[in-house]
This record gives sequence, structure tokens and C-alpha cells, in this order.
Amino acid sequence: MTFTQTLAAAWQKNNSLLCVGLDPDPAKFPAHLHGRDDAIFEFCKGIVDATADLACSFKPQIAYFAARRAEDQLEALIAHIHEKHPGIPVILDAKRGDIGSTAEQYAIEAFERFQADAVTVNPYMGRDSVDPYLAYPDKGVILLCRTSNAGGSDLQFLDVGGEKLYERVARLAAEQWNTTGQIGLVVGATFPAEIARVREIVGDMPLLVPGIGAQGGDIEATVNAGKTGKNATVKASGLMINSSRAILYAGKDENFAAAARRVALETRDAINLYR
Amino acid sequence: MTFTQTLAAAWQKNNSLLCVGLDPDPAKFPAHLHGRDDAIFEFCKGIVDATADLACSFKPQIAYFAARRAEDQLEALIAHIHEKHPGIPVILDAKRGDIGSTAEQYAIEAFERFQADAVTVNPYMGRDSVDPYLAYPDKGVILLCRTSNAGGSDLQFLDVGGEKLYERVARLAAEQWNTTGQIGLVVGATFPAEIARVREIVGDMPLLVPGIGAQGGDIEATVNAGKTGKNATVKASGLMINSSRAILYAGKDENFAAAARRVALETRDAINLYR
Repeated sequence: MTFTQTLAAAWQKNNSLLCVGLDPDPAKFPAHLHGRDDAIFEFCKGIVDATADLACSFKPQIAYFAARRAEDQLEALIAHIHEKHPGIPVILDAKRGDIGSTAEQYAIEAFERFQADAVTVNPYMGRDSVDPYLAYPDKGVILLCRTSNAGGSDLQFLDVGGEKLYERVARLAAEQWNTTGQIGLVVGATFPAEIARVREIVGDMPLLVPGIGAQGGDIEATVNAGKTGKNATVKASGLMINSSRAILYAGKDENFAAAARRVALETRDAINLYR
Repeated sequence: MTFTQTLAAAWQKNNSLLCVGLDPDPAKFPAHLHGRDDAIFEFCKGIVDATADLACSFKPQIAYFAARRAEDQLEALIAHIHEKHPGIPVILDAKRGDIGSTAEQYAIEAFERFQADAVTVNPYMGRDSVDPYLAYPDKGVILLCRTSNAGGSDLQFLDVGGEKLYERVARLAAEQWNTTGQIGLVVGATFPAEIARVREIVGDMPLLVPGIGAQGGDIEATVNAGKTGKNATVKASGLMINSSRAILYAGKDENFAAAARRVALETRDAINLYR
């Protein structure tokens, strides 16, 4: 199955557009995990097992593992997701971007070493920096388009001949780069009007939308702006709406996973109100 | 010492603007290293020890290590450079780029875990994605500006109100983001006219210039376009001109390090002809 097919099946199976972001910060872990060598794995495993039937995807952020020399725990975590929760795709949030020969190495890292189903990629270096990831036909590539941070506007909002740079990225992706249907885009929830604009440009392409929860994005506006299939007989989809911190750190003690599940369930259902 | 001071001292001490890029591909290693668990470290150590007095910096490309689960060998390599060749800065070529809270984690990865002196960063997400690296006052941040690959033009060459996007990145870096003198830029050697344009915008900011050697950039044109201090009493500098594959794979047998040294020496001296 392609990444897009896997994702579509997960949207339907779990009746969910919620992507659970895995940004493990040991300083925020419950006390019983402190000092354990495998604390990052155990924490994330607890979150994953408690939310896998509520999510359309998991998104581990590699920086949190790399900062703590914990690539082995990331490998183990993704293997655990594939084994215990098959059908829920894993997006490795790595925002890689380099010339072709180096991008080939990053593709090996993401898809062969970590066994991710998709990887986030930065478009600044252009098409040939994206192609090596597309050489894996069953994998997805999620390009940064409009990011949810304040500085996102510094370049992405520049006018490039009658449209903004992020619109150009969306158009290049949709019209030129996505010849194989493997590409999706990152569009922050902090800008619902821009989600709508991207949706207009890219048709049914999957959008990964960070920025709800801790970053303050509005769920109703996000779903209305970005959903696809508004007139179809199945529920609207097209979105992976990411929440990380609000779910991960919902609880502070041994029951952290149950607390995460409650918030994930509320978030999934809040999203579903507007599908 | 700041990164810029360390680099300036290395330019002078080794009379060199040559940056030796470390992109270790085990398939290209000499036969006697095949099958060794530490082959990546041993190969790079051979190159480093043979060229350290000819280089102004080393630039390991992290993708080549990450693709082979060899972060430990990268840590050991950088530690070796600092111990045996103090004063030669290490630029971790990682092209990271993410929102502030994640960029903090990448900064820990680059500067605390790997002990790099500088890291390459992608500017697409704007200023607040760069700031966390600048929180380390003795470290450098080398922003992608104009890259040497074919697709580099897809975004970087777009007109943004009378200048190209890469010129805007250079201008933002020089006029707004570089308040602490820690920032440098990546400008590919395949476009000497654009190196000259960037130099015009950024004053004496250090430029990392990939693209000579295997990628075909012209040394004379590169140096003339990018050098600083043309009228000073010391030799012109301002550039880290990177060569990777042409040096690393100059030899194919046990004498690979001596072969690498010969090419590094030729390249350093070819650069020095035009300073």
C-alpha cells in the first residue's frame, strides 16, 4: 500500500484525523520514569498504546531523540508501532533537505533505518532535493509549506509574482513535483485562511497541520478550512491534525497514559464535530 | 573564542581557505577497511590526520553517519579533531530547521552532543527557527542561502520585490538576524556571480562554498567573487571552500590518506593563487 492509501485507511478505521506528535522531553516525564535508560521509549510506548485506536498517524520528532543520543529508542518505538498497531502510519518529523546525493542518505535514514512511512522535508533546495525520497514508492514525503511559528512569515509570506512563497511551494508540489502521489504538505493551524488557500491549490493532497493545542490553533476553523470530500458519502478527511504537548503531558504521574488518552479522545471528537 | 575568531585563526595558521568535507560512503572505502565496525571513523580519521594542516575547517555531513547508525563514530571523530587538531573548527552539516522549541533540541544535538563549532541551518522557517542556535555564544550558524544543486533555483531564484529570494536571505541575515556576529552563509561555487552578489550584501560574513571538485565549480572565479580583505595587508579570506569527494576518494587503497593529502594540498594551493 502507498502512504496515502495507508493514511486513508487509518482515517476511516479510527474515525480520526488526529496525529499524535511524539516530542519526548524527559524533564516532563512522570517521576517513576526518571533515571531509566529506556525512559524515552517507555514514555512514548505508553502514549502510543493508549492512543493508537484514536489516531490516524504518529509523528515522532527526531530532534528530541537525537539531542539525547536515543536513536535506538526511536528505532524501537517505530518497530513497536508497526508491530502492535499495524496500519497506523509513522511520520518521521525530521525536516531534512539537501542535495540529491545527501538526500539519498537521509532517505536511507528515514525509511530503511527508522522504517518510517513518511518524512517531513524542507523545500528550500528545490525539486532534486525531494526526488530521492520519492524513489521509495510506498513512502510519503511531507513538504514544509506554511509553518506555524512566528518567523514562518519571514520567507513564506514574501510575494513572488502575485502569490506568496508558501502558495508557490504548494503549486510547485501539486503541479510539478507530485508526479507519483506521494507528497503531502505541512500547513500550520495558526493560519486557517492559509490552510484554505493551500487546499484550493492542491486538491486532495494530505495536509499535516501542527499548531493546535499548545500552539493555540482553532480546531473548527482548521477543519473547515482544510477538509476534503465535503460532498462525499464518507466523512471528510484530508488532514492530519497534530497535537503533541497537550496530549503527552496531560498527566504527571503513573497514570500519564490514561490522561493522554482522555485528551486524545476529546481532541479527536472535537475535530470530528466539524467533519 | 567565538566561531568567527577560531575560523580566522585557522585561515591564517594553515594559510588555507579549504574546508574538507567528510561524506563517508563505505562503498567507496579502500578494501582493507571493509567489514570493520569502526570503518567510518577510521576512514575519516585517516583523512583528517592527513589534511589537518591544510584545512581551515572540517565539515562532516551527518546524513552519511545517520544512514548507517554511526552517530557514535561521528562523536568520536569530532572529539578526535578537537583533541589532535585544536583550532580547526568543525562545521556539522545537518541543515536543520524547525520551530524554536525543536530547534533548541537540534542545538543540543549539534553543540552539546556532537561538540560541533558550527551547524548548517535552513532559513525557510524564519528568524525564530535560527535564534536557539545563537544562544550558544561561542558557536556559529551557517544559513543556507544559495545552494549549488540544480533545484536550488526553484525557490532561491524567485523574485521577491526586486531581488531574488537568496539575496533576501542574505540581507535578512546581515541586517536583522546576525546581531551577535555568529552567522555565516552557504553559497554554492557553481554560481560565482551570485557569490559576488552575496558578498556585496553581507560585508565580511564568512561564506561556506560547496561545489568545487566533484560538483564542477571554478576555483578562480569563486575566490575572486567571494574573498574579503582585498586591500588588507594580510591575505584575503572570508571563505570556506569545501571539497568532499575529490579529496576523500582520491586514492583507492591503503594509501588513501596520502592521496587525499596530495589533492587537498593542490586544492589549497590552487585557491591561494587567487587570494
